[in-house]
Amino acid sequence: MNKLPDISKDVSQWYNEIVYKAELVDQSPVRGCVVIRPYGWALWENIKEVLDKRIKETGHKNTSFPLLIPESFIKREAKHVEGFAPELAIVTVAGGKELEEPLVIRPTSETIIHYSFSRWIKSWRDLPLKINQWANVVRWEKRTRPFLRTTEFFWQEGHTAHATYEEAQEEALLMLNEYIKLAQDYLAIPVIAGEKSPTERFAGADITYTFEGIMMDGKALQMGTSHLLSRNFAKSFDIEYQDKEGKLEHPYLTSWGVTTRLIGAVVMTHGDQKGLIMPPRVAPIQAVIIPIFRKGFEQVVRDAAQELYTRLSKEYRIELDDDDSKSPGSKFYEWELKGVPLRIELGPRDIDNNAAVISNRVTGDKTVVKLDTIEAEVGTMLDNMHQELFNRAQAKLKDNWKKEAKLETFGPLMEKDAGAYQTGWCGEEACENKLSEYKGTIRCVLKESEFNQCFGCDKSSVRDVLIAKAY
Amino acid sequence: MNKLPDISKDVSQWYNEIVYKAELVDQSPVRGCVVIRPYGWALWENIKEVLDKRIKETGHKNTSFPLLIPESFIKREAKHVEGFAPELAIVTVAGGKELEEPLVIRPTSETIIHYSFSRWIKSWRDLPLKINQWANVVRWEKRTRPFLRTTEFFWQEGHTAHATYEEAQEEALLMLNEYIKLAQDYLAIPVIAGEKSPTERFAGADITYTFEGIMMDGKALQMGTSHLLSRNFAKSFDIEYQDKEGKLEHPYLTSWGVTTRLIGAVVMTHGDQKGLIMPPRVAPIQAVIIPIFRKGFEQVVRDAAQELYTRLSKEYRIELDDDDSKSPGSKFYEWELKGVPLRIELGPRDIDNNAAVISNRVTGDKTVVKLDTIEAEVGTMLDNMHQELFNRAQAKLKDNWKKEAKLETFGPLMEKDAGAYQTGWCGEEACENKLSEYKGTIRCVLKESEFNQCFGCDKSSVRDVLIAKAY
Repeated sequence: MNKLPDISKDVSQWYNEIVYKAELVDQSPVRGCVVIRPYGWALWENIKEVLDKRIKETGHKNTSFPLLIPESFIKREAKHVEGFAPELAIVTVAGGKELEEPLVIRPTSETIIHYSFSRWIKSWRDLPLKINQWANVVRWEKRTRPFLRTTEFFWQEGHTAHATYEEAQEEALLMLNEYIKLAQDYLAIPVIAGEKSPTERFAGADITYTFEGIMMDGKALQMGTSHLLSRNFAKSFDIEYQDKEGKLEHPYLTSWGVTTRLIGAVVMTHGDQKGLIMPPRVAPIQAVIIPIFRKGFEQVVRDAAQELYTRLSKEYRIELDDDDSKSPGSKFYEWELKGVPLRIELGPRDIDNNAAVISNRVTGDKTVVKLDTIEAEVGTMLDNMHQELFNRAQAKLKDNWKKEAKLETFGPLMEKDAGAYQTGWCGEEACENKLSEYKGTIRCVLKESEFNQCFGCDKSSVRDVLIAKAY
Repeated sequence: MNKLPDISKDVSQWYNEIVYKAELVDQSPVRGCVVIRPYGWALWENIKEVLDKRIKETGHKNTSFPLLIPESFIKREAKHVEGFAPELAIVTVAGGKELEEPLVIRPTSETIIHYSFSRWIKSWRDLPLKINQWANVVRWEKRTRPFLRTTEFFWQEGHTAHATYEEAQEEALLMLNEYIKLAQDYLAIPVIAGEKSPTERFAGADITYTFEGIMMDGKALQMGTSHLLSRNFAKSFDIEYQDKEGKLEHPYLTSWGVTTRLIGAVVMTHGDQKGLIMPPRVAPIQAVIIPIFRKGFEQVVRDAAQELYTRLSKEYRIELDDDDSKSPGSKFYEWELKGVPLRIELGPRDIDNNAAVISNRVTGDKTVVKLDTIEAEVGTMLDNMHQELFNRAQAKLKDNWKKEAKLETFGPLMEKDAGAYQTGWCGEEACENKLSEYKGTIRCVLKESEFNQCFGCDKSSVRDVLIAKAY
């Protein structure tokens, strides 16, 4: 039971250890890839289930496109290849032979999906076309960290085609909004949403919308993006349809995705010195039952714990830890490390009182709960905990969100202590480039406009921006 | 509306067209890979949901292992590399550089998973270890066909480790049994199960259990396998644990998988001249509602259809096809082609009678059903249709299952008309090899023993076998 690094001093080191100790991941023999263990994968499955339901309810259909993409496809959209070429993993040999045309493992699927769009979209009646896929993608990253940046990662990528620019933009914003709801209502993570600056856009997009979390150390984490793509994609892949007047037109395209990085955001937003804290609505295990064995009462306790497990499992994701070779103390330690929201202790005296003791992972509070009403109590406690976590994270976000007019003031502060700085921007790349000196980037262009002058020059501000160091 | 090839004369050609026409798949620009379209992917999602639930209920946990495997790993188990080397797709360049060690795209994950097993299994307390993953794999096949054999395909692969041979064998048989239940109770496909002959075993297995369907043209289709692996895997990957006496032991390993090929089996087992027939319990759309518009009653019919859609959608997967630019006849054609089990017609006269007309895709029968009780009626009809499909397929299987003592008798018949032949076998490869002359293989070694002599020589039969041509 060696201790975790001090989270108040070094979140980054704490993160690197907790993801292994809590058995979310394990090392793999492939550079930049991890094994996602059952506890980590169950969290992803729960996130997937929530989002997949909404993707379907908003009229999208799931599909599956090939993993491998002809190299020439990636090259068709000029900005796209420029953005992705350095990160590609390339298959050059297959079936014992050198391939005539190398195949790249998809870093994202715009190109191969737009090829199909050109087959499927012929008339205005075929629009809008709204599809999604859950897939693995590979980007050969130089520096990797479990969940936050891995060579192979998992995501969903939605791709749509629309008759008008307005409709496409509406779609991109709709899905951004679904992502925000997922983050806030299920992961209990408050986020900041806005546009990316031109230099930070997706390779080949006209507008990239982003939503960002500010982690507990004040660094930003891009949690997902939604793009209104440049019409060049439709042109490069010959996607054309006849409109109602019989004229040939290119449709307007969007794409949007969130990845297993969301797991990293959960870890980095809610954890504490004892380990993970899983947001209750997506927690792989919402409550763990720990029978407290006392000599002579083993069977009574075991039976009562089993009965409680059966009852609660009907409504919640429950684990029963009745391994009598381990002490209750070591179990408490383990399940706290793994961040299970509620711990339910059940001993002979509790059974006599027709009650159990429930501990709250966030506050540490213990509550005696009558067994007769325990289903409802657990539900209420989980809901309250979700709200507690969200409020706590929002308070931290407020603390970390600062406002400063000039780079020379906030630059050194940001470099030293991180934090997110709202400020004004003239909209020009020259000023944006000055941020790299302090390891910051524009995380997003905000709707708010409080500043009149640019952070980096004497020109007027066009829009406020949020600037931070990022994971 | 060009016609499908005659299914009674050329199932194979019929198959090649229906999978595209029914929009299960589309062509992709990558050799041997297809795009799985929403209707095909929804079928796979339904199959996944049923099986995933059982995999979890039988104590397995989902995980995710890397797509890419170091080439040296594949080479560690001698038979494994021999079996898979010719089919590998190999990444030699990544991040703009030649890799020091090439990476293969997983053709299956035994090697990389056993690497993790060696990290996780230290003591008898760590056993049994039971995991599964839903993943894509790549095998560079020479001849491909949608679903039946594609370069990239989708599957689940279960991997387990046990303290004893008996327990591992029990596991391999347990999962075989789950697969059979999936095939029979959900896909309505009767199957034959048994062991593979040594030459047909998985590369590196001691025993391979298989379950095979006999398609409507009398050819066999291997629908999935469950393996008791050779201990060489545990030895090659240094998987060792301390048993209760403190002695170091290698565990016994299993692996088992089913793939998107199951979709091919569904198409090939149930289809008819009109198109697909989807087995009701996994059908992407269980019933389609088609409003019959009559002049002056458009709104009444539209409203009633919408109301019925809302009601039925609470319990079933329902589609409402209220596009008034198409005739009912062209809609009937399309949904029959796609194999939707029930078609519900609703016109002004039906509404007056508080009824709807339901057509059965298998029999073509039409039934007038009162709207008050339509939920229950639809449920009964779907259940009955499942049974009808199963019975029909079982009757075909019986027809196709023949018994013959000698290869010289059944060899030419099998080559010409396919069919599955039960016969005796001495157990020797020399006789097995004679089958290739007639394009047949031993599909499985049966439990039954009716024949005394081998099909290919004068020796006694050790076990009966089932011989057929295969997809």
